[in-house]
Amino acid sequence: MSATKVNPDLQRERDNCTFNVTELTNLLDGGVQKTTDRKLQEDRVLRELMSTNDVPAVYLSHKEKYEAAVKKACAMFQMIRRLQDEENAGMENYQALLGGTLGSAILGDGNPLTLHYVMFIPTIMGQGTVEQQAYWIGRAFNLSIIGTYAQTELGHGTFIRGLETTATYDPETKEFVLNSPTLTAYKWWPGGLAHTANYCIVMAQLYTQGKCYGIHPFIVQLRDEETHMPLSGIKVGEIGAKLGMNGTNNGFLGLENVRIPRDHMLMKNSKVLEDGTYVNAPSSKLTYGTMMFVRVMLCNDMCNYIAKAVTIATRYSAIRRQSQPKPNEPEPQILDYVTQQHKLFVGIASVHAFKLNADWIWNMYNNVTAEMESGDLERLPELHALSCCLKAVVTADAAENVERCRLACGGHGYMLSSNLPLTYGLVTAACTYEGENTVLLLQTARYLVKAWQQASAGNSLTPTVAYIGRVSKGRRSPPWDNTIEGIVEGFHNVAAGKIGLCVTQIEKRQKEGMSYEDAWNMTSVQLTSASEAHCRAIILGTYFNETEKLVKGVSAELKTVMLQLVDLYVVYWALNRMGDLLRFTSISERDIEQLQNWYENTLTKLRINAVGLVDAFDIRDEILSSTLGSYDGRAYERLMEEAMKSPLNAKPVNESFHKYLKPFMQGKL
Amino acid sequence: MSATKVNPDLQRERDNCTFNVTELTNLLDGGVQKTTDRKLQEDRVLRELMSTNDVPAVYLSHKEKYEAAVKKACAMFQMIRRLQDEENAGMENYQALLGGTLGSAILGDGNPLTLHYVMFIPTIMGQGTVEQQAYWIGRAFNLSIIGTYAQTELGHGTFIRGLETTATYDPETKEFVLNSPTLTAYKWWPGGLAHTANYCIVMAQLYTQGKCYGIHPFIVQLRDEETHMPLSGIKVGEIGAKLGMNGTNNGFLGLENVRIPRDHMLMKNSKVLEDGTYVNAPSSKLTYGTMMFVRVMLCNDMCNYIAKAVTIATRYSAIRRQSQPKPNEPEPQILDYVTQQHKLFVGIASVHAFKLNADWIWNMYNNVTAEMESGDLERLPELHALSCCLKAVVTADAAENVERCRLACGGHGYMLSSNLPLTYGLVTAACTYEGENTVLLLQTARYLVKAWQQASAGNSLTPTVAYIGRVSKGRRSPPWDNTIEGIVEGFHNVAAGKIGLCVTQIEKRQKEGMSYEDAWNMTSVQLTSASEAHCRAIILGTYFNETEKLVKGVSAELKTVMLQLVDLYVVYWALNRMGDLLRFTSISERDIEQLQNWYENTLTKLRINAVGLVDAFDIRDEILSSTLGSYDGRAYERLMEEAMKSPLNAKPVNESFHKYLKPFMQGKL
Repeated sequence: MSATKVNPDLQRERDNCTFNVTELTNLLDGGVQKTTDRKLQEDRVLRELMSTNDVPAVYLSHKEKYEAAVKKACAMFQMIRRLQDEENAGMENYQALLGGTLGSAILGDGNPLTLHYVMFIPTIMGQGTVEQQAYWIGRAFNLSIIGTYAQTELGHGTFIRGLETTATYDPETKEFVLNSPTLTAYKWWPGGLAHTANYCIVMAQLYTQGKCYGIHPFIVQLRDEETHMPLSGIKVGEIGAKLGMNGTNNGFLGLENVRIPRDHMLMKNSKVLEDGTYVNAPSSKLTYGTMMFVRVMLCNDMCNYIAKAVTIATRYSAIRRQSQPKPNEPEPQILDYVTQQHKLFVGIASVHAFKLNADWIWNMYNNVTAEMESGDLERLPELHALSCCLKAVVTADAAENVERCRLACGGHGYMLSSNLPLTYGLVTAACTYEGENTVLLLQTARYLVKAWQQASAGNSLTPTVAYIGRVSKGRRSPPWDNTIEGIVEGFHNVAAGKIGLCVTQIEKRQKEGMSYEDAWNMTSVQLTSASEAHCRAIILGTYFNETEKLVKGVSAELKTVMLQLVDLYVVYWALNRMGDLLRFTSISERDIEQLQNWYENTLTKLRINAVGLVDAFDIRDEILSSTLGSYDGRAYERLMEEAMKSPLNAKPVNESFHKYLKPFMQGKL
Repeated sequence: MSATKVNPDLQRERDNCTFNVTELTNLLDGGVQKTTDRKLQEDRVLRELMSTNDVPAVYLSHKEKYEAAVKKACAMFQMIRRLQDEENAGMENYQALLGGTLGSAILGDGNPLTLHYVMFIPTIMGQGTVEQQAYWIGRAFNLSIIGTYAQTELGHGTFIRGLETTATYDPETKEFVLNSPTLTAYKWWPGGLAHTANYCIVMAQLYTQGKCYGIHPFIVQLRDEETHMPLSGIKVGEIGAKLGMNGTNNGFLGLENVRIPRDHMLMKNSKVLEDGTYVNAPSSKLTYGTMMFVRVMLCNDMCNYIAKAVTIATRYSAIRRQSQPKPNEPEPQILDYVTQQHKLFVGIASVHAFKLNADWIWNMYNNVTAEMESGDLERLPELHALSCCLKAVVTADAAENVERCRLACGGHGYMLSSNLPLTYGLVTAACTYEGENTVLLLQTARYLVKAWQQASAGNSLTPTVAYIGRVSKGRRSPPWDNTIEGIVEGFHNVAAGKIGLCVTQIEKRQKEGMSYEDAWNMTSVQLTSASEAHCRAIILGTYFNETEKLVKGVSAELKTVMLQLVDLYVVYWALNRMGDLLRFTSISERDIEQLQNWYENTLTKLRINAVGLVDAFDIRDEILSSTLGSYDGRAYERLMEEAMKSPLNAKPVNESFHKYLKPFMQGKL
């Protein structure tokens, strides 16, 4: 990219940057060596897998998109297979391809083979017996079979207990008989299920000896290994076009008296014996680990997407010039407009904030795991509650930031070639999958309400909710302190205050005759708000604390900028949640006006380093995949180049002129 | 639709509805006769133009989408042509087809011929001389030519003065020579420009006798009328795939020494004489009228889109059952969750609020026009300021409501067949076109700041900003009154308070040495907020006042529900903007808790009529075009039916299995 001429406006931004961009990149990567490794891997993978000659996927039909995705996915997994064979290449390599930014660079809108690696194999590893692992993992690893994982049904998603698919044990034949008793029992959504996988882990209600034992995993063969034809009793197909992820080949699956051998139930935890006896084993702590891992990964994914969006929007804002506020002066870069800074910079800070929070919760989980080994499970509910609200808030904020960046690019952000719409499609999906956000916030709220009640009863609380104890005991909050620490403390008061109000409301409604469940429901809008407030307090506090630690090891120049970002982020949220602060702290009008000025001044300070800050995310053009955001800033040239790839532009006159338009104009239609 | 079996959950909702749905439909339509006429028109148009056999557009390639759109657009305009010829059919008929819900039912993702009718012909009518009209309008009306309107360029959108295309008069040949001097001067975005139109109104900087006279309209022929081949010097093509509107055939246009006769400049207002002399005529009031009309239409469009989205999400919420809050009871309809009501009901109220506001401003405009006839232009700036912020707030709220409805439908809302993603694509586009929202809010802010300064100088203000006078004079606001009237009054105090703070800030910054422009920019985040607050106060007040008038003529049952909707809407916004109310009014914590209860109780009251309220929008299934929202509530069946239309589901095994997947699995790739 160094050979290309860089847009002079963008070059000037880089010349004026006050800190060392590489230093920040290394810090975000986790060290110089990690940056080097990442870049090497990117070079290698992209050189091998990126083909620039293809018609961009956005111009293809739905069917062609799938076919192109299979082609690319096979090439990618071919590479993974080779990496596995090579000595120095471990899991790390293929994870970057499956999840992270590299995979999405190659398969922009979803990969039909991902679930084979991230759900099919791990579920067998986690829930299969040693014998089952021996049999299945080998076949899966050498790709003799391709699997997926089917849980969600047409009628049920987040509420797993409601799933309707049944697996009934038949002791006569020693088989399970799987059925979709209703239309709503059809599996719906699993990636790769439609036309790609030939095996599937089906989550189904287990019936044996006339009794239902709840949801268990079963391995079901879907298609003939040779011909790929669906087997008897299997109704399988794709669910249709979606807002995004049109390469994932999401499928449906109906089962009609499909018989599988007894040992196709994954039996590491629970078993069905030959005679049909159900043997329960307490489910392992592993499920917590998987869930925490998935949510932390999801937060990191969200960071990557926000980083992409702000990189695109910030670079574009540096090269776009518009309007003429001062007569006889040239049109300013739109990055000079404070309203534009307001839209973008909080996105930059959010990446830092969420990354540090994800690391922090993951470290905490690992520490807690060590405690668990010695039988101490006390902090598991706390961690679970935290991961729920963090997932909800981070995905919602990510969607908001990405969409704000798109809108900040005006009309051109509406072009798919900006890559902003596609990025939004991927991010907003995460607000729904892995637990719908409102449901997750209410799960956290349940924990917070209990914590309040425990504190009121005089019990001490685990660290992340300790603040509730202070407020619930009616200790007066200290006078408002207009500093970052003071604001974080203020957010603790807000969260605790809101939880307390919810508890009061619920109790009041119960006294008025409502059941607990109805009182809970009636208060649930406030409960989601309390849950979010808890999460905001955690995110702000953690971002501040972790940055304070980090900056001890960086240059003075970088330290300044990193602390400015913290200021920006914390003050942004203080202004955004002013109503809450006014209700639950002693903040004054004078304080607010100071905060407003602090915010505007911080925007101005960050202005000079905006491009440097997004450059530090170090997202290569191939991964960014955006006409508006490329490193060289040639946005207009790229918009035109990309438009010329449209098959509609291949001929000067489209056939529809002769077929429809001309007869119509001549009145002959 | 009466023949279809209705989902029993949905039927029960209808049975329980407390008001007469048809009464509300008639009210929304503007009378019984209007409802009858609309239904007749819908029947007729949909019967003739809807074809159900086609592969749904979502499965087509970008090129195929365009070709299908041309086909449908020709059929639609054929019908319009016939309607024009019929005696009783006037403009009304074709407007419903071009704009409104009918057009979007037939051409879901944009129409390549729309600009011919809504921009090409009206611009010639508005800005052409009588001779020009005589020559062009006839040819355009009988479709001998198809035109479009090209203003926006690659480098400039909302800031029209910055356009770069030039039209230079050559007195020797009595021609204008049109050029795109740079890449950024290329026209970019006009609908139908790419492959559909053969003529175009090009907005260009007029140069004559060595001087630039600013932007003027020129009619340029783009393509040969017989062959449709682009003419010499014309570079024309399509701009590529977009987030939405992929049927509109948005194009680019580069001009290289394109010569047109002098009389191809539209000269009703300004002229260039044969010798090159520029003759200026003051631009007519017509531009205000057009702008007001377009913005009012846009508000009504937004109402239609929100109505669609809430209809879909509300009906789906009535048939979707999920979770089990109470043991041993069936899963509730998700419409019973207060968090779900919170997401949907404000959308229903927003449709009513925006509709009444659009009517109100349009009436006001017409009254003001009458004043203008007698030379009184005093209220024009006020109306302009109002239309700017109303466009910004209504489009932004519409986008938020539609997206919230989509997310409220969980995973299935992500399916294109829900029609929610496509609806969002159309709505969010409106946040950018017809004036970018942030720019518009700042235009209103400029008016508000002036109004404040005038009031401070002792001048009286026009009606919609009269409230500024009260606050700017330092009169103490009355004690908080926890009623709808009190809240509306509170929003006036908020708006005035924010404007006042902005003025103070700007003046303070000027005193500190900043130029006015820099002080303005530095304060612009607060200015947009003040502008929005002004608009909120207007919307809330107008919605309340107009409803109070309306309900005098309706049944007691309907009156109750309509007033509940007003309560919901006003209290929702009070809670949403609590920080502002706490800063600028004397509202107390006790008041807030009462408002919260009021809000929750209003949700509960509206719950029983939710389906009735969306039924009253009376959007036919063909127009709704949603698997999740159909009148009969057969969401799951329709999801499956629609999926089966995917060409990927036509064969059990996709070719890519043999081509890529099998060789890959066998290690032979």
